[in-house]
Amino acid sequence: MKIKRIEHVAAAVHDLAEVRGILETVLGLKLDAVEDFGIAELAMFRVGASSLELVQGKSPQSRPSKWLAERGPGFYHVCFEVEDIDGALAELKAKGVRLLDETPRTGHAGSRIAFIDPQSMGGLLIELAELPAGGH
Amino acid sequence: MKIKRIEHVAAAVHDLAEVRGILETVLGLKLDAVEDFGIAELAMFRVGASSLELVQGKSPQSRPSKWLAERGPGFYHVCFEVEDIDGALAELKAKGVRLLDETPRTGHAGSRIAFIDPQSMGGLLIELAELPAGGH
Repeated sequence: MKIKRIEHVAAAVHDLAEVRGILETVLGLKLDAVEDFGIAELAMFRVGASSLELVQGKSPQSRPSKWLAERGPGFYHVCFEVEDIDGALAELKAKGVRLLDETPRTGHAGSRIAFIDPQSMGGLLIELAELPAGGH
Repeated sequence: MKIKRIEHVAAAVHDLAEVRGILETVLGLKLDAVEDFGIAELAMFRVGASSLELVQGKSPQSRPSKWLAERGPGFYHVCFEVEDIDGALAELKAKGVRLLDETPRTGHAGSRIAFIDPQSMGGLLIELAELPAGGH
């Protein structure tokens, strides 16, 4: 597969509004978008060719909430942009890599995403994303 | 301050050689450099305009080893490139932000770096780096 760039780095935080304010007023980052998925809230900041994503789970059962309860606030996954996510997942399966998402699901801004099982990645949580044609 | 891009994302791992092999053979990432700082080993992969850095501490007292012991393998800091790190640190101090490095120290490839205290960043560990003129 061809990995093009870091699409985003996600951080799980206890208080999204507080950390969002810190990034804006202390680091001068510009908020790009906020999204509410019901089980989690996101705030996206554009940084060069990538984004920094803040996530706060709204349900104790959500993945970011569980991760936060176990490890405390921090960076919990990195998303790489690929050109062809179906091809990438087929390649990973052929290599015996375990996937959290066997088939792509819909991510933010019309992207198609899948997470790789960290057990196949030395403990690192990695997301792959194919962006819609015409997206960046 | 003006943050230009994500310079790198660092991951602390238990077995650098194993995870390096996974990134190369499974994800097809290309190794850019390896560095040995005595207390820690690094492997850098170029991904678009940023790098992914794997770190394995070689001493239990090293920061990545302590972090790994507490939290398990994962992404432990993000480094933002700034144009003027002296100006950035002065601005942070004026805003009352706590710094782990009060003055810049030398990082990889001749960069000048400083870490912000995560207590001032909602728990996130953030590094700032000024690259040498002519670097990328």
